[in-house]
Order: sequence, then C-alpha cells, then structure tokens
Amino acid sequence: MIEVLGIIVFTISGAFSAMQKRFDAFGVLIIGFVTALGGGTIRDVLIGYTPVSWMRGGHIPLIIFVTGIGTIFFKQYIKNLKVTFVIFDALGLGLFTIIGIQKGIAAGLSPEICVILGTITGSFGGVLRDILLNNIPQIFRKEIYATACIVGGIVYFLLTGTFNNEITRLVTISIICGIRLIAVRYNLSMPKFYA
Amino acid sequence: MIEVLGIIVFTISGAFSAMQKRFDAFGVLIIGFVTALGGGTIRDVLIGYTPVSWMRGGHIPLIIFVTGIGTIFFKQYIKNLKVTFVIFDALGLGLFTIIGIQKGIAAGLSPEICVILGTITGSFGGVLRDILLNNIPQIFRKEIYATACIVGGIVYFLLTGTFNNEITRLVTISIICGIRLIAVRYNLSMPKFYA
Amino acid sequence: MIEVLGIIVFTISGAFSAMQKRFDAFGVLIIGFVTALGGGTIRDVLIGYTPVSWMRGGHIPLIIFVTGIGTIFFKQYIKNLKVTFVIFDALGLGLFTIIGIQKGIAAGLSPEICVILGTITGSFGGVLRDILLNNIPQIFRKEIYATACIVGGIVYFLLTGTFNNEITRLVTISIICGIRLIAVRYNLSMPKFYA
Repeated sequence: MIEVLGIIVFTISGAFSAMQKRFDAFGVLIIGFVTALGGGTIRDVLIGYTPVSWMRGGHIPLIIFVTGIGTIFFKQYIKNLKVTFVIFDALGLGLFTIIGIQKGIAAGLSPEICVILGTITGSFGGVLRDILLNNIPQIFRKEIYATACIVGGIVYFLLTGTFNNEITRLVTISIICGIRLIAVRYNLSMPKFYA
Repeated sequence: MIEVLGIIVFTISGAFSAMQKRFDAFGVLIIGFVTALGGGTIRDVLIGYTPVSWMRGGHIPLIIFVTGIGTIFFKQYIKNLKVTFVIFDALGLGLFTIIGIQKGIAAGLSPEICVILGTITGSFGGVLRDILLNNIPQIFRKEIYATACIVGGIVYFLLTGTFNNEITRLVTISIICGIRLIAVRYNLSMPKFYA
Repeated sequence: MIEVLGIIVFTISGAFSAMQKRFDAFGVLIIGFVTALGGGTIRDVLIGYTPVSWMRGGHIPLIIFVTGIGTIFFKQYIKNLKVTFVIFDALGLGLFTIIGIQKGIAAGLSPEICVILGTITGSFGGVLRDILLNNIPQIFRKEIYATACIVGGIVYFLLTGTFNNEITRLVTISIICGIRLIAVRYNLSMPKFYA
C-alpha cells in the first residue's frame, strides 16, 4: 500500500519536472514512469531479477498512467499540496530503500551491497529523470537525499537480528524520513569540494 | 530483411546527428550503433533475454560499421534522400515496434507490458542517442513518434486472435508508419503542458 | 592486483571530474564508483552475468569508498602526480579491455562481439561519468581512447592461438597503453566530420 503511495508520489514529482521543461503529454508520462520505477529497474537488472518487477503484473503501469494524467489536469491543485508532497516523497524514499535492501538480502548479497541496492532503489529514479531532462542530477548537489538512504541502510543492518522485522523496518523508515525532512526543512546539504 | 533496413536507417540517423555535433569517426559509429540497437538492447535487458540479441550473431555490428562508414563518405548524397529517409525511418519504427511486442509475448508478458516493450524497442534508441549527444530527447518534445508505437501496439492486440498473424502485422505496421508520416508531413505534435 | 590499480585510478579520475562540477561528497563518491565500475557493469548486464561482478564480493565498493575519500582530502597532492596518473589510466584501460574480452570469450561470444565488450569495459565507465556530469562524452571528441581498445582487441585475437595467454595479454596491454600514451603526449585524435 505504501509502495503504491511511493510510486504515485514519485510519478507526480517526475511529471512536474517534465512539465517545467515543456514536454508533451507522452514525455510527461514517460518521465513520471522513469522517476517512479527507474531505481527499482536498475536494481533488478543489476541483480539479474528479470523480467524486472513492474513487468510481472500489469497494474503498476496503469497506476502511473492514471497518476500522470491526473497530474496534468490537477497540476494547480497539487502545487498547493507542497508540504504533503514532501512528506510522501520522504515516505516513498524510506520504503523504496527498504524494498531494495530486502531484495538484496533475498539474492544472498552482502550487507554492503544491500545498502547500495537500497540507495539505488530509493534515489536512482530521480537520477534517470534528471538525465532525461538534461539536468545534472540533483542528488549530487542539493539537499541530503541518498545519504539518508545510506544511513537508513546501515541502521537496518545494525538492528536486524536484535529486533524483529517490523521494528527494524519501522525504525529504518523513520530515520530515512526524518533525515530527509530535516534536510528539506533546514536546507541542509552535504559538504561540497572543488578540485 | 526489413529489420536490416530498419537498422541501416537508424544507424544513418544516428551517424548524422553525431556528425552535426562534430564527433570523431569512432563517435559517429558508436552513436549509429546505439541509435540502431539501443531500444532492442534495453528491451532484452528488461526481459532478461541475455546475451542481448545483437551479441548472438556477429553480422549486425558489421552492418552498422559498414553503414556508419558509408554515411561518413556519402553524407552529401544521403542528405538529398530526405524523403526516402523519412519513409524508411517510419518503416523501421513500425517493424521494431512489432518485434518488441512479439518478444514480450514470447516471454509471457501481459499486453500492456508488450505495448510498452514495443514502444521501447522502436523509440529508445533515439532516446539514448540524444542522451549521448547531451540533448533533451526529441521524442518528448517534437513530432509524434512514440505515440505512433503505442497506438500501433494497441491495434496489434485488438486484431490478434481475430485476424491471422500476417494481417495483424501488416495493419499494425501500416498504422505506425501512417501516423508517423502524417505527423512529419503536417508537423503534428502532442499537446504540451507547463507546470 | 593491476585490476585494483585500474579501479583506483578510474575512481580518482571520476572523483576529480565531480569536484570540478562542485558535487557534494556523496556525488564525488558516486561518480568515482560509476567511472570505475560502469563499463564492467554494462558488460555484465549485456552478457547476462548477474548479479554483476562487483556485487559478488564486498571489497570493491570499499576500495572505491576509501579511494574517493582519499581523493577529496589529498586532491592538491594528487594533482601534481599528473604524469603518473596518465600512465596508470592507460594501464587500467588496457587491463579492463582484456578482462572484457575474456569475459566475452567465456560466454562463448564471437571475436567481433568480444572486442566490443572489451571496448565497453574499458571506456564506458567514462561515458557514464560524462552523462552524469551532463557533459558530451569525451571519448567521442577528444584524444584517441576507445580506438586503442579496439586496436588492442583485434591484436588480441590475431595473437591468441599462436602465442600463449601471457604473451597475448602482455602484447595487447602494451599496445593499448602505447597508443593511449602516444595519443595523450602528441594530442592525437581521430578525424572529425561535420554533416
């Protein structure tokens, strides 16, 4: 259920970015699609879990299609929901990260790699979105984003084994959401360097 | 045979774009390669059909190599074939879309996903080309392109079962080609939105 | 061992490029990661060798992490090692190319395809780096780079069978390194064309 929420929020985020670049209706839908599913797709391809997840059932593309069309029609209304949107985006980030970690564990990969897979799942949809929009990926220069996934992933492996699965997941999502919301609220970013 | 024509036309299209950005000979060949095979490669990777199609026989890279070199030497002559070129490009689009749909069916995927795979096969070589050229992908902003694939894909599934395979393919290709040629002729594009 | 050197050098090269675009610490590490592992990852995905190589043991991400952090702290010092750096980069290019060729052979692919896989392994990490930095990929316009991989790959297949494996590898690496170093020294590039 929250997974669907995550997909919807990421679709809306992608669709808005595409409309800002004056893409056509098809472009808006595609960018929404890529933003929502890109991270998980890269993860599945790297693991070798093919056909990739969203191909196995037909309903996810439909959800994205409806969400994308809805975003086009109700864009003015959605714009006013900015705070709600940021919260759902942080929730989606946390959940996508955990899904990525658990897929890595299921594939028998090491904790280090699982954290990387969680981070890819949570944040690389946005990277693909920015590449298609011909922007430098935001996560490399703006507010803390992927760092929240990494910290959350490390916490996940510190807790798991000691606590049960529900508590581990809940704490991990809370930490990712928390870091992300604090970063947006106080406009925090990672230190930058210039060579 | 038409598949080879499609590959040749897409290679020429990619090679021209690369020459316009003053790429070197290697760059021209690579962009030709990516434009011709990128869509099918993404499709194969998403399905899990690996090694990907063009790796299974050595002749496709050779065709692209020869076509790319030929484009460099005869660029002035090819430029004058603009109308021929647009027609072959539309043919290639139609055929690539059908190949993608049929690969999806062979992998046991749902019609919805097969239409997406057809569209990816037909149009994502051009997306990769534009990313490598550091352009915003044309299909998101200019004439109708991927939309033709989607409409064709839907028609394919409406006809299949009722009509035999040859008729289904013929009608689908005709519709994709037709939409594409009309879009180019009358400079039609999808509606654009601005957020 | 030289493989690790190759990874370190490519990581440093990516990290520097990212710092020049004022990326944050996370961005610097990711670009280092992608530059070092991107080519091999694309190769593995195209072949269907999944989970991809660097996921099978945890130590490669760690090497990249440490190298990336080290690059940030010692950037002034590394800058002065320019000549050393170019030599290691050429060595890494040669070795990565051979690894790619041998993976292709192990997968039963034709020599033509193996040369392509060697070239992808050696040079597509840099292509991904440039895409993420929103630059036109350097290998399409600047000094000879991928061409060295292609020539080396062809030499590899000319020698193999006649000479033993060690000699074949040594000559191939020498040729790739040699072409690359001469190209950098004399600022050689492939002919360019303009359509």
